This record gives sequence, structure tokens and C-alpha cells, in this order.
Amino acid sequence: MGGIMNIFDTIIIGKGPAGISAALYLARAKKNIVVIGKDIGSLAKAEKIENYYGLEAPITGEELAHRGINQVTNLGVPVMNQEVTSIELLYPGMNSDNDLALQMGGVFLVTTPEEHYVAKTVLFATGKQRTALKVPGFSEYRGKGISFCAVCDGFFYRNKPIGVVGNGMYGVTELTHLFELTKDITLFTNGLPLDPEAAKLIPKEITIVTDVIRAIQGNKPAEDGGVVSSLVAGGKTYSLQGIFVALGTAGATDFAAKLGLATGEGSESGTLIVDKNYQTTVPGIFAAGDAIGGFLQVAKAVGDGALAAKSILDSLRK
Amino acid sequence: MGGIMNIFDTIIIGKGPAGISAALYLARAKKNIVVIGKDIGSLAKAEKIENYYGLEAPITGEELAHRGINQVTNLGVPVMNQEVTSIELLYPGMNSDNDLALQMGGVFLVTTPEEHYVAKTVLFATGKQRTALKVPGFSEYRGKGISFCAVCDGFFYRNKPIGVVGNGMYGVTELTHLFELTKDITLFTNGLPLDPEAAKLIPKEITIVTDVIRAIQGNKPAEDGGVVSSLVAGGKTYSLQGIFVALGTAGATDFAAKLGLATGEGSESGTLIVDKNYQTTVPGIFAAGDAIGGFLQVAKAVGDGALAAKSILDSLRK
Repeated sequence: MGGIMNIFDTIIIGKGPAGISAALYLARAKKNIVVIGKDIGSLAKAEKIENYYGLEAPITGEELAHRGINQVTNLGVPVMNQEVTSIELLYPGMNSDNDLALQMGGVFLVTTPEEHYVAKTVLFATGKQRTALKVPGFSEYRGKGISFCAVCDGFFYRNKPIGVVGNGMYGVTELTHLFELTKDITLFTNGLPLDPEAAKLIPKEITIVTDVIRAIQGNKPAEDGGVVSSLVAGGKTYSLQGIFVALGTAGATDFAAKLGLATGEGSESGTLIVDKNYQTTVPGIFAAGDAIGGFLQVAKAVGDGALAAKSILDSLRK
Repeated sequence: MGGIMNIFDTIIIGKGPAGISAALYLARAKKNIVVIGKDIGSLAKAEKIENYYGLEAPITGEELAHRGINQVTNLGVPVMNQEVTSIELLYPGMNSDNDLALQMGGVFLVTTPEEHYVAKTVLFATGKQRTALKVPGFSEYRGKGISFCAVCDGFFYRNKPIGVVGNGMYGVTELTHLFELTKDITLFTNGLPLDPEAAKLIPKEITIVTDVIRAIQGNKPAEDGGVVSSLVAGGKTYSLQGIFVALGTAGATDFAAKLGLATGEGSESGTLIVDKNYQTTVPGIFAAGDAIGGFLQVAKAVGDGALAAKSILDSLRK
């Protein structure tokens, strides 16, 4: 981050329908914004979209995403094809209270492998995530040795054997943080290909296991106070005391614990909780589209994006 | 209404973004639906739409509306270019309680000058209305001689001199109802051209005034118990005891009083109040888009339509 720092009004994370719809409104209101996104999420899998108003003929999700990106690019909005690996609240002084930090004029620092971005507000339009591993033991030991946040929980695993489940830049970012606390780390890609760019950043001391994870085991049942003791992958059992899950691209809920954002539960797990103004439980951080759950449809995401933009405009006015 | 009666699952009133978005979802869920609408409302005035997700190049509101209509027509949904002039709840037996009627298996009868339609549910996607006349005395005497519902209030004006403010089929429908109660009716078009089709149905006893309305006057101030006593148009004062406003095409709030639907106030006047499932205060009647107020944008209307359709599907399942 050299030279003069550009403080954006809003950083929109996600370049799907919710993010781009919000970008249209913010750009037309002459706000200084940037859209950052690595992929188009669930739209990439949509072979044929017919139920979105205004499409005379069905188109692919990819084509619709492409149109949306062109639409904001034509308005002069930068759309960065980058992966957000961390979001931090920067504030003057030494206060750790997020609310207070914002009142004091805090800003958000959003980091990608290529760049740093600073903004007054952030919009999560990152889609709905599947953070869960569908293996025996995952639900049982979640929070009992299984963590989604290296910054939050890494300290408890100093010099202990741990595993990181990840295959991309986000996983490696988490791993890098943990590597300062313990050198005994195994990286599990869970059968997914390891991103070549991310692979370059992995310290050579790290063991990489590309087998599919079959189970997570504890020293005794979780209800009797048990915690994670091992992970089974490719027919082999790895003794571990902690497992950090950071698969694929980081989404809203991956940052939730770090930022103090409330998340949904049950069928709404993998989503952020927002108020009627689309604001999360942290002032200045908004969310829209599949990232807030509900009806997972382009139509609803586009509406969300417009309404979230309206709230962000109100918030920036203050 | 001859022959076998077709009971629709849903009648969608309005062929703009909210109505068509809902139609897409209902049609794809194999529901038996019809869209009825005379015009495309506020979209007709939009010369250039840029802020709706998925449009690579700006288009006119008319072109967007046209695309949407084609989209549902391609799915086999009938889109009727007709004006809804009345909506009634039909129910077996002699009960006047709407809630009870629905529990008893009530259906909605929607009437246009050309046809009758019957359905289990109705969606108002009629846009936001301006029912107010911007003339001195209008606000003061609203509800004190000024009415929006001939069926509700006509009885109080038997054999009295009244005015009907209207210029289309809806105004004439209201006038026809009132004509059974009093012959002393003046029709005011408020400077608007009289729809030629509607004109044919006006009884010859009726005086038609095409001048712009300048004021509404009372016998004394409304706060002292005053009521409407005259209307000024084109420099002439007409002695009247009641004024029924039914301008243009009937919208959601024109039917609200007749059906018992709660409506918004202040900046939200001209809108219907709905719950989180987009249902109005009458079970089986839903509303979406500008008709429910809030952010008057295509993006929000499209999201509303999709979500309302989801609730209608839930409702039809019961």
C-alpha cells in the first residue's frame, strides 16, 4: 500500500447479482467504490436461467454474471478479479471495541494477495457458503478442536500438531498465520486441487495431504468433554489437536468470527444475520444476496443489492 | 362468464416487473395463472433504465416491460390487456366476514369490461398510486364527503347531488354503481381526456365536466364538523354533497376499502400494507412491487415478485 491511500466509500466483496446490483446504485450516486471477487459463486453452476425478469431468452449463469460485470465496468467501477483473504477494522488508538472504533472513525482494511483496500463501509455479497465438512465427527467436534478462524483460536494451539483444511489462497493465509504459532501443521486439500499460486506460499516444512477426508475423531465423545484427537484421510489416521477449516475462497462467514458478525444457524448456517437495513451486527458492514440466506434466487439477490445500497448511502451520509 | 368456470390459482393484477417476476415463478411451479393489466405504469415514463442488473446497455422502460411480457408469454402464461374494474370475494353462504368466507372456501372474482376471472389468490402488482387530488380542500374534507369507494359509501348519498372524478373505465364503473342510488351526478375528468370506450357507458342524464378541478369547499371548516358542499372547476362552482374519486386505471388502494385491505399513510399513502410474506391484511390477497411502497425501483419490484410468488405457493399448498 504505497503512495496516497485511496479511501473507498464502499468495498463490495462479490461480483454476482447482489454485489453488482448494489454497485450500480452506489456508482450512480457518485460513490467511490470497488468490487472485488474471485469467482461468480453459484451462478457458475446455473446452466440456464429463465426466471429472472427481463431475459427474453434463457441464458447461462456465466453469461448473466458477465453482463452484470460489463454493466458496472461501463459506469467506471473497478471490478478486481482478486480473492479477499482478510478483512480488518483499522482504528485510531488502541481500543479493541469494534463499535467504539467505528465511532472513532474506523475504516476497514480489505486484503487480497495482490493489494490492500481501505473503505468506510463493506458489503458482503459473497453468496451462501458451505463451510461444513460432510464427514463423521464434524458436527460433534465443531468448536471442540474444529475452528474457522486462525486469528481467533490459533493461540490455543501453540506448538501443537494441527491440521488446516484448505486448497486455495484463503487456506494458505490461515496456514501462514498459524505457522507463526506452531510448525507442526498438515494441510489437507480434501481431494481438491491445490491452487498453484497458493502452493508457492506454503512453507516447505508443511506436509500436504490431497486425500479426501473420511472422519474426524476425538479422545472421547464430545458430550463427555472430548476434543479432536485425529483426522482420517486416504485410509491414514493423523494425530491432531486442532483442525482449521478454510476451504476454497473465503466467504462471509469465514470472516464472521474475526469481525464479530452474527451468523445464521440450521438451514441458514453459512449466512450472515442482518437487520432490516441489510446491516450486519457490526456497523458499517452490510450484506446482501445469498450471503444473508432466504430465497436463493437472482431476483431476490438483485433486490437485496439495491436496498443494501440505499442503506449504505444513508450510512455514508452520517 | 359462460360454460365451465376456470378457477385460477392466482390472478396477477399488473404486468410490470413485480407482476411478471411473480408470474415466472408461479408458471414454472405449474400453477394456473393469468396476468391482467391495462398499462405498464411508471415504467412507461422511464426513458432509460441503467440500474437494473443484467442490462448491458440502457433500455427504455417500455422495452423492459415488453421483454418481461414476452418472457411469461413464452412460458404459456396468458397476459390480458384489460383493465380490472372490480374485485369481489365470493363465498358460499351469507356471511359478510371476509376471513370466515375464505376459511369456507371463498374465491376472488376479478372483473374487467371484457371478462370475469375467478381465482384462489390475487396478487396486486399495480404500482404505487396517486389517489390524491392536489387541490385546496382535498386533504381537509377527505373522509368528510370525499370517498374512494362507491360500494362502501354510496348508500349515504341516495338522491343527493354528487360528483365522480374519473376519466376511464374505472370511474365509469363507480359512476354506474352510484347511478342506482342517485341520478344527480356530475362526472369530472379533471382536465384528462375521457376514455372513448368508457364514454359509451355513461348514462345520458350525467353532466360531464372536462375542466381542471381547482378546489373543494365545505359548508364550514372540517375541524368544526364541516363536510363537502361544492367543487370548483373551470371557474364554476358545483354544489355537491359527495365526491367519489376514481381517476385513471384502478389500482390497489382503489380496491382496498372494498376488500378491507390496510393501506399506508403519509409518504406511503397509495400503497398496501403487507406482512413479511407479502400478504395483505386479507388472507389470499398478496401485493408486491411499488404497490407496497418502499424503494420504488425495478430491482426491488423483481425481488418482491419472486418472494411473493414463494409465499403464494406456500399458501396454495394449504
